[in-house]
Amino acid sequence: MISFVAPSGTGKTTLVEQVIATLHQRGLRVAGIKHDAHRIELDTEGKDSWRMRKAGADTLLIGDNQLAWMSDSTEAPSLPSLVELFFADADVVIVEGYRSAGLPTILVERPEVSDPTWQRPQSKILASVHPSDLPGAIAAVDRHLAALDKS
Amino acid sequence: MISFVAPSGTGKTTLVEQVIATLHQRGLRVAGIKHDAHRIELDTEGKDSWRMRKAGADTLLIGDNQLAWMSDSTEAPSLPSLVELFFADADVVIVEGYRSAGLPTILVERPEVSDPTWQRPQSKILASVHPSDLPGAIAAVDRHLAALDKS
Repeated sequence: MISFVAPSGTGKTTLVEQVIATLHQRGLRVAGIKHDAHRIELDTEGKDSWRMRKAGADTLLIGDNQLAWMSDSTEAPSLPSLVELFFADADVVIVEGYRSAGLPTILVERPEVSDPTWQRPQSKILASVHPSDLPGAIAAVDRHLAALDKS
Repeated sequence: MISFVAPSGTGKTTLVEQVIATLHQRGLRVAGIKHDAHRIELDTEGKDSWRMRKAGADTLLIGDNQLAWMSDSTEAPSLPSLVELFFADADVVIVEGYRSAGLPTILVERPEVSDPTWQRPQSKILASVHPSDLPGAIAAVDRHLAALDKS
Protein backbone atom coordinates (compact mmCIF):
# COMPACT_ATOMS: atom_id res chain seq x y z
CA MET A 1 0.00 0.00 0.00
CA ILE A 2 1.19 3.46 -0.90
CA SER A 3 -0.68 6.54 0.23
CA PHE A 4 -0.85 9.81 -1.72
CA VAL A 5 -1.28 12.77 0.60
CA ALA A 6 -1.62 16.46 -0.28
CA PRO A 7 -3.17 19.70 0.87
CA SER A 8 -6.54 20.02 -0.81
CA GLY A 9 -6.56 21.77 -4.16
CA THR A 10 -3.15 20.44 -5.12
CA GLY A 11 -4.27 18.29 -8.03
CA LYS A 12 -3.59 15.02 -6.29
CA THR A 13 -6.43 13.03 -7.84
CA THR A 14 -5.26 13.67 -11.38
CA LEU A 15 -1.77 12.48 -10.47
CA VAL A 16 -3.17 9.38 -8.71
CA GLU A 17 -5.24 8.61 -11.81
CA GLN A 18 -2.14 8.83 -14.02
CA VAL A 19 -0.09 6.67 -11.64
CA ILE A 20 -2.80 3.98 -11.67
CA ALA A 21 -3.10 4.10 -15.46
CA THR A 22 0.68 3.84 -15.90
CA LEU A 23 1.00 0.84 -13.56
CA HIS A 24 -2.09 -0.81 -15.08
CA GLN A 25 -0.73 -0.43 -18.62
CA ARG A 26 2.43 -2.13 -17.42
CA GLY A 27 0.34 -5.21 -16.60
CA LEU A 28 0.27 -4.81 -12.83
CA ARG A 29 -2.91 -5.58 -10.89
CA VAL A 30 -3.68 -2.23 -9.32
CA ALA A 31 -6.17 -1.54 -6.56
CA GLY A 32 -7.32 1.89 -5.47
CA ILE A 33 -8.72 3.03 -2.14
CA LYS A 34 -10.36 6.39 -1.65
CA HIS A 35 -11.30 7.51 1.82
CA ASP A 36 -14.08 10.05 2.02
CA ALA A 37 -14.68 11.62 5.40
CA HIS A 38 -17.83 13.22 4.06
CA ARG A 39 -20.95 11.16 4.13
CA ILE A 40 -21.14 9.12 0.96
CA GLU A 41 -24.61 8.21 -0.18
CA LEU A 42 -24.67 4.92 -2.01
CA ASP A 43 -28.26 4.13 -1.50
CA THR A 44 -31.40 5.37 -3.17
CA GLU A 45 -34.61 5.95 -1.28
CA GLY A 46 -37.13 3.22 -1.90
CA LYS A 47 -34.67 0.62 -3.20
CA ASP A 48 -34.74 -2.79 -1.48
CA SER A 49 -31.40 -2.26 0.28
CA TRP A 50 -32.59 1.16 1.48
CA ARG A 51 -35.76 -0.44 2.86
CA MET A 52 -33.71 -3.08 4.72
CA ARG A 53 -31.54 -0.39 6.26
CA LYS A 54 -34.45 1.78 7.29
CA ALA A 55 -36.04 -1.27 8.93
CA GLY A 56 -32.98 -1.46 11.20
CA ALA A 57 -30.45 -3.73 9.51
CA ASP A 58 -26.84 -3.06 8.60
CA THR A 59 -27.02 -3.91 4.93
CA LEU A 60 -24.89 -5.41 2.18
CA LEU A 61 -25.96 -5.01 -1.43
CA ILE A 62 -24.08 -7.48 -3.61
CA GLY A 63 -23.84 -7.50 -7.39
CA ASP A 64 -21.52 -9.44 -9.66
CA ASN A 65 -18.67 -6.94 -9.69
CA GLN A 66 -19.86 -4.40 -7.19
CA LEU A 67 -20.87 -4.30 -3.58
CA ALA A 68 -22.10 -1.74 -1.10
CA TRP A 69 -22.13 -1.90 2.69
CA MET A 70 -24.27 0.55 4.62
CA SER A 71 -24.75 0.97 8.32
CA ASP A 72 -26.27 3.55 10.59
CA SER A 73 -24.19 2.58 13.59
CA THR A 74 -21.15 0.45 12.82
CA GLU A 75 -17.75 1.71 11.68
CA ALA A 76 -16.21 0.36 8.53
CA PRO A 77 -13.88 -2.65 8.97
CA SER A 78 -10.16 -1.88 9.29
CA LEU A 79 -8.10 -1.04 6.23
CA PRO A 80 -5.89 -4.19 6.48
CA SER A 81 -8.91 -6.50 6.77
CA LEU A 82 -10.57 -4.84 3.78
CA VAL A 83 -7.42 -5.10 1.70
CA GLU A 84 -7.04 -8.77 2.64
CA LEU A 85 -10.61 -9.57 1.55
CA PHE A 86 -10.89 -7.44 -1.57
CA PHE A 87 -7.34 -6.97 -2.83
CA ALA A 88 -5.42 -10.10 -1.86
CA ASP A 89 -4.28 -10.53 -5.48
CA ALA A 90 -3.27 -6.93 -6.15
CA ASP A 91 0.34 -6.10 -6.99
CA VAL A 92 0.01 -2.58 -5.65
CA VAL A 93 -2.65 -0.73 -3.66
CA ILE A 94 -2.81 3.04 -4.18
CA VAL A 95 -4.50 4.85 -1.30
CA GLU A 96 -5.93 8.37 -1.32
CA GLY A 97 -6.86 10.18 1.86
CA TYR A 98 -5.99 7.86 4.77
CA ARG A 99 -3.28 10.06 6.21
CA SER A 100 -3.72 8.75 9.76
CA ALA A 101 -3.15 5.12 8.73
CA GLY A 102 0.63 5.49 8.85
CA LEU A 103 1.17 4.10 5.37
CA PRO A 104 4.29 4.77 3.28
CA THR A 105 3.45 8.10 1.70
CA ILE A 106 4.11 10.08 -1.42
CA LEU A 107 3.52 13.77 -0.69
CA VAL A 108 2.05 15.82 -3.49
CA GLU A 109 3.01 19.46 -3.04
CA ARG A 110 2.91 22.65 -5.07
CA PRO A 111 4.82 25.72 -3.90
CA GLU A 112 1.92 27.92 -5.07
CA VAL A 113 -0.61 26.18 -2.83
CA SER A 114 -0.05 27.16 0.74
CA ASP A 115 -2.40 25.96 3.44
CA PRO A 116 -1.40 27.19 6.91
CA THR A 117 -3.36 24.34 8.55
CA TRP A 118 -1.55 21.69 6.50
CA GLN A 119 0.67 19.32 8.45
CA ARG A 120 2.80 16.65 6.92
CA PRO A 121 1.68 13.18 8.03
CA GLN A 122 3.75 11.29 10.58
CA SER A 123 4.35 8.36 8.25
CA LYS A 124 7.32 7.26 6.16
CA ILE A 125 7.71 9.74 3.29
CA LEU A 126 8.80 7.97 0.10
CA ALA A 127 8.99 11.17 -1.93
CA SER A 128 7.63 14.65 -2.34
CA VAL A 129 6.50 15.35 -5.88
CA HIS A 130 4.85 18.16 -7.82
CA PRO A 131 1.37 17.11 -9.12
CA SER A 132 2.66 17.31 -12.70
CA ASP A 133 5.63 15.04 -11.95
CA LEU A 134 4.28 11.67 -13.04
CA PRO A 135 7.78 10.21 -13.70
CA GLY A 136 8.84 11.23 -10.18
CA ALA A 137 5.79 9.59 -8.63
CA ILE A 138 6.26 6.39 -10.65
CA ALA A 139 9.93 6.26 -9.71
CA ALA A 140 8.99 6.51 -6.02
CA VAL A 141 6.42 3.72 -6.41
CA ASP A 142 8.98 1.54 -8.20
CA ARG A 143 11.63 2.10 -5.54
CA HIS A 144 9.12 1.13 -2.85
CA LEU A 145 7.97 -2.02 -4.69
CA ALA A 146 11.59 -3.03 -5.33
CA ALA A 147 12.41 -2.58 -1.63
CA LEU A 148 9.40 -4.75 -0.70
CA ASP A 149 10.53 -7.43 -3.13
CA LYS A 150 13.96 -7.55 -1.52
CA SER A 151 12.67 -7.74 2.03
CA MET B 1 -28.22 -16.65 8.02
CA ILE B 2 -31.76 -17.15 6.85
CA SER B 3 -32.71 -16.71 3.23
CA PHE B 4 -36.09 -15.48 2.01
CA VAL B 5 -36.93 -16.88 -1.41
CA ALA B 6 -40.00 -16.25 -3.54
CA PRO B 7 -41.19 -16.08 -7.13
CA SER B 8 -40.95 -12.46 -8.27
CA GLY B 9 -44.00 -10.31 -7.64
CA THR B 10 -44.89 -12.13 -4.44
CA GLY B 11 -44.34 -9.21 -2.08
CA LYS B 12 -41.26 -10.70 -0.46
CA THR B 13 -39.40 -7.44 0.15
CA THR B 14 -42.22 -5.98 2.24
CA LEU B 15 -42.27 -9.10 4.40
CA VAL B 16 -38.48 -9.06 4.77
CA GLU B 17 -38.68 -5.39 5.81
CA GLN B 18 -41.26 -6.23 8.48
CA VAL B 19 -39.26 -9.22 9.74
CA ILE B 20 -36.14 -7.01 10.09
CA ALA B 21 -38.09 -4.27 11.87
CA THR B 22 -39.67 -6.77 14.28
CA LEU B 23 -36.34 -8.37 15.20
CA HIS B 24 -34.65 -4.97 15.44
CA GLN B 25 -37.35 -3.65 17.79
CA ARG B 26 -36.74 -6.67 19.96
CA GLY B 27 -33.15 -5.49 20.44
CA LEU B 28 -31.44 -7.99 18.16
CA ARG B 29 -28.55 -6.88 15.96
CA VAL B 30 -29.92 -7.56 12.50
CA ALA B 31 -27.97 -7.61 9.25
CA GLY B 32 -29.49 -7.70 5.78
CA ILE B 33 -28.02 -8.94 2.53
CA LYS B 34 -29.59 -8.27 -0.84
CA HIS B 35 -28.23 -9.94 -3.93
CA ASP B 36 -28.85 -8.17 -7.17
CA ALA B 37 -27.99 -10.06 -10.31
CA HIS B 38 -28.60 -6.92 -12.34
CA ARG B 39 -25.73 -4.52 -12.66
CA ILE B 40 -25.83 -2.16 -9.73
CA GLU B 41 -24.30 1.24 -10.34
CA LEU B 42 -22.80 2.69 -7.21
CA ASP B 43 -20.47 5.08 -8.85
CA THR B 44 -21.01 8.44 -10.45
CA GLU B 45 -19.13 9.56 -13.53
CA GLY B 46 -16.38 12.02 -12.69
CA LYS B 47 -16.13 11.21 -8.99
CA ASP B 48 -12.67 10.33 -7.64
CA SER B 49 -13.49 6.65 -7.19
CA TRP B 50 -14.90 6.52 -10.73
CA ARG B 51 -11.69 8.07 -12.04
CA MET B 52 -9.58 5.46 -10.18
CA ARG B 53 -11.64 2.65 -11.65
CA LYS B 54 -11.51 4.01 -15.19
CA ALA B 55 -7.73 4.31 -14.84
CA GLY B 56 -7.64 0.53 -14.30
CA ALA B 57 -7.90 -0.10 -10.57
CA ASP B 58 -10.36 -2.22 -8.65
CA THR B 59 -11.59 0.39 -6.23
CA LEU B 60 -12.80 0.72 -2.66
CA LEU B 61 -14.58 3.89 -1.59
CA ILE B 62 -14.67 4.08 2.18
CA GLY B 63 -16.74 6.41 4.33
CA ASP B 64 -17.44 6.32 8.03
CA ASN B 65 -20.49 4.06 7.89
CA GLN B 66 -20.57 3.15 4.24
CA LEU B 67 -18.31 1.49 1.75
CA ALA B 68 -18.40 0.60 -1.92
CA TRP B 69 -16.26 -1.87 -3.84
CA MET B 70 -16.20 -1.72 -7.60
CA SER B 71 -14.38 -3.84 -10.10
CA ASP B 72 -14.48 -4.37 -13.81
CA SER B 73 -13.06 -7.86 -13.67
CA THR B 74 -13.12 -9.50 -10.24
CA GLU B 75 -16.06 -11.35 -8.70
CA ALA B 76 -17.36 -10.31 -5.30
CA PRO B 77 -15.82 -12.16 -2.31
CA SER B 78 -17.74 -15.19 -1.04
CA LEU B 79 -20.84 -14.75 1.10
CA PRO B 80 -19.27 -16.36 4.23
CA SER B 81 -16.15 -14.17 4.00
CA LEU B 82 -18.27 -11.04 3.62
CA VAL B 83 -20.47 -11.99 6.58
CA GLU B 84 -17.39 -12.66 8.69
CA LEU B 85 -15.90 -9.26 7.93
CA PHE B 86 -19.00 -7.08 8.02
CA PHE B 87 -21.48 -8.92 10.24
CA ALA B 88 -19.43 -10.81 12.83
CA ASP B 89 -21.47 -9.22 15.63
CA ALA B 90 -24.93 -9.72 14.14
CA ASP B 91 -27.47 -11.90 15.95
CA VAL B 92 -29.25 -12.74 12.73
CA VAL B 93 -28.51 -12.21 9.04
CA ILE B 94 -31.52 -11.97 6.73
CA VAL B 95 -30.68 -12.74 3.11
CA GLU B 96 -32.72 -11.90 0.03
CA GLY B 97 -32.04 -13.45 -3.31
CA TYR B 98 -29.12 -15.86 -2.87
CA ARG B 99 -31.12 -18.96 -3.66
CA SER B 100 -28.14 -20.95 -4.90
CA ALA B 101 -26.18 -20.48 -1.66
CA GLY B 102 -27.95 -23.39 0.05
CA LEU B 103 -28.95 -21.37 3.10
CA PRO B 104 -31.81 -22.32 5.42
CA THR B 105 -34.79 -20.84 3.61
CA ILE B 106 -38.19 -19.37 4.30
CA LEU B 107 -40.31 -19.64 1.18
CA VAL B 108 -42.70 -16.78 0.51
CA GLU B 109 -45.59 -18.03 -1.59
CA ARG B 110 -49.00 -16.77 -2.67
CA PRO B 111 -51.47 -19.13 -4.33
CA GLU B 112 -52.53 -16.34 -6.70
CA VAL B 113 -49.03 -15.85 -8.09
CA SER B 114 -48.15 -18.73 -10.34
CA ASP B 115 -44.89 -18.74 -12.23
CA PRO B 116 -44.42 -21.88 -14.33
CA THR B 117 -40.63 -21.36 -14.38
CA TRP B 118 -40.42 -21.15 -10.59
CA GLN B 119 -38.54 -23.95 -8.87
CA ARG B 120 -38.20 -24.33 -5.15
CA PRO B 121 -34.56 -24.06 -4.04
CA GLN B 122 -32.68 -27.20 -3.03
CA SER B 123 -31.96 -25.89 0.45
CA LYS B 124 -33.42 -26.65 3.86
CA ILE B 125 -36.92 -25.15 3.95
CA LEU B 126 -37.72 -23.72 7.40
CA ALA B 127 -41.26 -22.71 6.48
CA SER B 128 -43.51 -21.63 3.65
CA VAL B 129 -45.43 -18.47 4.46
CA HIS B 130 -47.86 -16.10 2.76
CA PRO B 131 -46.34 -12.59 2.29
CA SER B 132 -48.89 -11.17 4.75
CA ASP B 133 -48.01 -13.76 7.41
CA LEU B 134 -45.50 -11.81 9.50
CA PRO B 135 -46.20 -13.88 12.66
CA GLY B 136 -45.58 -17.08 10.70
CA ALA B 137 -42.28 -15.76 9.33
CA ILE B 138 -41.13 -14.56 12.76
CA ALA B 139 -42.06 -17.91 14.31
CA ALA B 140 -39.93 -19.70 11.70
CA VAL B 141 -36.99 -17.36 12.37
CA ASP B 142 -37.33 -17.94 16.13
CA ARG B 143 -37.45 -21.72 15.75
CA HIS B 144 -34.31 -21.59 13.64
CA LEU B 145 -32.43 -19.32 16.07
CA ALA B 146 -33.49 -21.51 19.01
CA ALA B 147 -32.24 -24.62 17.20
CA LEU B 148 -28.89 -22.88 16.53
CA ASP B 149 -28.63 -21.95 20.22
CA LYS B 150 -29.11 -25.58 21.22
CA SER B 151 -26.57 -26.95 18.81
